[in-house]
Amino acid sequence: MTKAPIQKDWEEREFIESVTLNIQKIIDFLNKFELSTRNKLATVNEKILTLERQVDYLEASFKTVSE
Amino acid sequence: MTKAPIQKDWEEREFIESVTLNIQKIIDFLNKFELSTRNKLATVNEKILTLERQVDYLEASFKTVSE
Amino acid sequence: MTKAPIQKDWEEREFIESVTLNIQKIIDFLNKFELSTRNKLATVNEKILTLERQVDYLEASFKTVSE
Repeated sequence: MTKAPIQKDWEEREFIESVTLNIQKIIDFLNKFELSTRNKLATVNEKILTLERQVDYLEASFKTVSE
Repeated sequence: MTKAPIQKDWEEREFIESVTLNIQKIIDFLNKFELSTRNKLATVNEKILTLERQVDYLEASFKTVSE
Repeated sequence: MTKAPIQKDWEEREFIESVTLNIQKIIDFLNKFELSTRNKLATVNEKILTLERQVDYLEASFKTVSE
């Protein structure tokens, strides 16, 4: 059941490398994804703010005219 | 301090399994979350585009009428 | 190539701790990020809904007046 020490060492090193690599990939992906989502939401909020101002202005203009 | 080889082997295998499983769960969650966020942002951008067109049209119509 | 058992045990424990800690940090970050994104998208959808109602109302009012 137990393995030869050198083979075991090798497998351990491979496992450690793969885990470290995967964790690093996940962290890199998360950083990019978080930044990209934040930027997209900021753009969306900018557009909504512009629309809110346009609609408020239209409502005010419409009230003035129809009074 | 050092453990019996077979018990150590067993603990190692359990640790490897749990790490592998957790990394896989994180990757699966990230894939679903990224897709779901992308879809929700696409829907939001569709709605904003529709609103922008409606508001532009209203502004143009209002100008024509009030001139 | 193989290391003294006690040193190896120590390194293994450090690796296990660091992997466990990193996976936990990733999971914590993901939970916060997912909740925050969900909240921000809910706020965005609220604002869009309000705008849609305002624009619908403006369109209807405008039609009534210009007819």
